[in-house]
Amino acid sequence: MADSRTAQTFLDRLDDAGRRSGSCLCIGLDPDLALFPTDAGLPSAIEERIVAFNVRIIEATHAHASAFKVNLAFYERFGADGWRALERTVRAIPRDIPTIADAKRGDIGNTARFYAEAFFEHLSFDACTISPYMGFDSIEPFGRYPGKGVFVLCRTSNSSADDFQLHGQERPLYLDVARRAVEWSDKMPGTVGLVVGATRPTDLAAVRAEAPETVFLVPGVGAQGADAAETVRVGRGSSGRLIVNSSRSILYASSGSDFAEAAESEARRLKAALVGL
Amino acid sequence: MADSRTAQTFLDRLDDAGRRSGSCLCIGLDPDLALFPTDAGLPSAIEERIVAFNVRIIEATHAHASAFKVNLAFYERFGADGWRALERTVRAIPRDIPTIADAKRGDIGNTARFYAEAFFEHLSFDACTISPYMGFDSIEPFGRYPGKGVFVLCRTSNSSADDFQLHGQERPLYLDVARRAVEWSDKMPGTVGLVVGATRPTDLAAVRAEAPETVFLVPGVGAQGADAAETVRVGRGSSGRLIVNSSRSILYASSGSDFAEAAESEARRLKAALVGL
Repeated sequence: MADSRTAQTFLDRLDDAGRRSGSCLCIGLDPDLALFPTDAGLPSAIEERIVAFNVRIIEATHAHASAFKVNLAFYERFGADGWRALERTVRAIPRDIPTIADAKRGDIGNTARFYAEAFFEHLSFDACTISPYMGFDSIEPFGRYPGKGVFVLCRTSNSSADDFQLHGQERPLYLDVARRAVEWSDKMPGTVGLVVGATRPTDLAAVRAEAPETVFLVPGVGAQGADAAETVRVGRGSSGRLIVNSSRSILYASSGSDFAEAAESEARRLKAALVGL
Repeated sequence: MADSRTAQTFLDRLDDAGRRSGSCLCIGLDPDLALFPTDAGLPSAIEERIVAFNVRIIEATHAHASAFKVNLAFYERFGADGWRALERTVRAIPRDIPTIADAKRGDIGNTARFYAEAFFEHLSFDACTISPYMGFDSIEPFGRYPGKGVFVLCRTSNSSADDFQLHGQERPLYLDVARRAVEWSDKMPGTVGLVVGATRPTDLAAVRAEAPETVFLVPGVGAQGADAAETVRVGRGSSGRLIVNSSRSILYASSGSDFAEAAESEARRLKAALVGL
């Protein structure tokens, strides 16, 4: 924690990277071996295969990225081999581009402290995603790191997202999560953001009204089909910041040996469609 | 998945282990290096140190255990080294004792499938804990495994547990989670249980009334102070099953070189206090 980043907040770093890349695009490094190109000369051993693929994607696309996000499940499925690939992937990302661990952990006490240690100290991520079910106790240990950020899971777009959102009320639970996140950001040195899906623009607007200045991490553009320009317009509101994640549409833009060039083209196209921060 | 276990459900395996041990005690293998004995001849390298400690605890206590639970954060904090220690720990547990990954993952689609693959295939756990925030989509991929179980996070005892539980209603959210878990167990081949804390017996009783036959994983007895006999009486209800987890009170019963013997004594004492399944 004694490097030069500590004077900056996560939000400062995100703003810097957004300015440099002219972009609010976050690129999701979710390596799905079933979708890897077969004729691109990638090594066959799992750890080496993932690292080689990720490094080529990072080299090809980093000029267009305001952040890189890594989804833990895509690595954990391979156990310790996957974790080694993850450790090497994080080290391969240029240090001036913020990194996000999409982990959605949610626990309390020592357990939450150790998860924070895993992502912020051992792996040196700049931010991670958190599940809010157990309340503030599961967020607070991550908020103790002044230079780091958390994105609290708020509104998702999956078909069962409403199983527990309405709970007999007109006002959905995710708006309470948004309101709390604003309160929490005043109580902690770290940056507190929200994860809000893009595919329901009305809900995105409602969360933005509840949390006008909070930074949003917005999945759903690209393979999931949400409109890029509308997402930025609605998601940013009058004063908010957002980063828009896309994974599959960039990583698997081509299934051939030109996958890295195709990823670069798609990232460039998306960056333009997202208008910039 | 082609071993002899697959004909049994997770609940069958839990019942068998409960009968053999005469116990509903689940022992939590949460290795906290700061609490390890310093004069017990444990190796100094992290992976070896964790494995050596766990193996001695498993050997000393397995006769009293109806299950072993592993909290992922205690391993992830050490990255790939921690995951290797986890892989070796799971292999060191006798195969007739069910194993639970306390991971509280909660995601959807491919991500949830890959987490299920990590815990049920790569690591060969028999069950894992899941966060319900995103609804059925985050449970279903884990429920496809007929011989496996999930425990859905329901009622916890931490101080901020109510941040999102009431949401302007008299009926708390966790009772909706319990009701849904009962519905889900009819829709999936795997066993669906609930995580319900012991330290609020009234809440434990309310969840039991909502889910009379569901298996509960109950933390909070031991170091966290809930009464063992009352937990079993209230938690079991008239027809339910439960396993009661204790970690710290067993693992760190002594800070000296007799830590394994002290763990055995404490596990035996807790088993007796828990009355048996």
